[in-house]
Amino acid sequence: MLEPPQVAFRDSVHPSDPVAIRRIVESTSFFRPDEVEVAVELAQERLAKGEASGYFFVFAEFDGGVTGYACYGPIACTLGSFDLYWLAVDQAHQGRGVGRLLVRECERRIRLQGGRRIYIETSGRPQYKPTRRFYEHCDYQTVAVLADFYDSGDDKVILVKRIDEIAAGV
Amino acid sequence: MLEPPQVAFRDSVHPSDPVAIRRIVESTSFFRPDEVEVAVELAQERLAKGEASGYFFVFAEFDGGVTGYACYGPIACTLGSFDLYWLAVDQAHQGRGVGRLLVRECERRIRLQGGRRIYIETSGRPQYKPTRRFYEHCDYQTVAVLADFYDSGDDKVILVKRIDEIAAGV
Repeated sequence: MLEPPQVAFRDSVHPSDPVAIRRIVESTSFFRPDEVEVAVELAQERLAKGEASGYFFVFAEFDGGVTGYACYGPIACTLGSFDLYWLAVDQAHQGRGVGRLLVRECERRIRLQGGRRIYIETSGRPQYKPTRRFYEHCDYQTVAVLADFYDSGDDKVILVKRIDEIAAGV
Repeated sequence: MLEPPQVAFRDSVHPSDPVAIRRIVESTSFFRPDEVEVAVELAQERLAKGEASGYFFVFAEFDGGVTGYACYGPIACTLGSFDLYWLAVDQAHQGRGVGRLLVRECERRIRLQGGRRIYIETSGRPQYKPTRRFYEHCDYQTVAVLADFYDSGDDKVILVKRIDEIAAGV
């Protein structure tokens, strides 16, 4: 892995971000067209409704451009549980630790928002093995597998990281 | 248990239903005020947006009044997975099998809508033990427990019933 670039984080959402998100998500060649639309729609909803949308964003900027982003939010009807909905890094900037920096930045912000647990839902299909491994490396643990949840043969895997048990200042 | 009353089922949502739902849900003395509001809001959203809301209702009517109801819907980004969001029976009509009839009616309708798995999410707190037992009697199985999901000491329990493995015509 190369040195992580000196990325700057930004949590305000700009009118240009839906386009940047589409570019990043499409660059990964990982998501279906309908999934790309959902990613873009979350940013549009955030722009329309502000924090009341329930969607919070972290953008990683490097050399004047957005190289990756994450989207998270509090889970309704819970105290301290958050979902990490999306995380993607531009294909051209992968392999340099930007994803891991984004996870860490989300965790820092979620902790400031009173979060104690962060959940990730992903697919159990082989294609998603690198995704699951990435989060395991970030200390997320698989706590549930719902067989055939997304479709026959496509399980839902739920991972969690408890950030209330981690020393402050991490 | 008394004989089940001869309830009639209705799936159209009337403008008077949010009030009926509030009455039923409050009569159970089981839900917090904010949970009651969520129950009412789902019906209002259904009235405003129709089936595009993603919320489907079954009302059990008996002797001219609504005695119970259930709310379910397809889970986005899945093929064949449905959530059973709400089910409540008026306190005055409990203990006569109306809840079980409502579950069966939801399952029948979900099957007609192409559903293959029905999920229920509930709390692991002792207060919800009768709820979990009710669904176990309806052949739902616990497939996941997310510790402290709702709050410290308040787990989320996920139950599922696979309706694709059941003989047609049930």
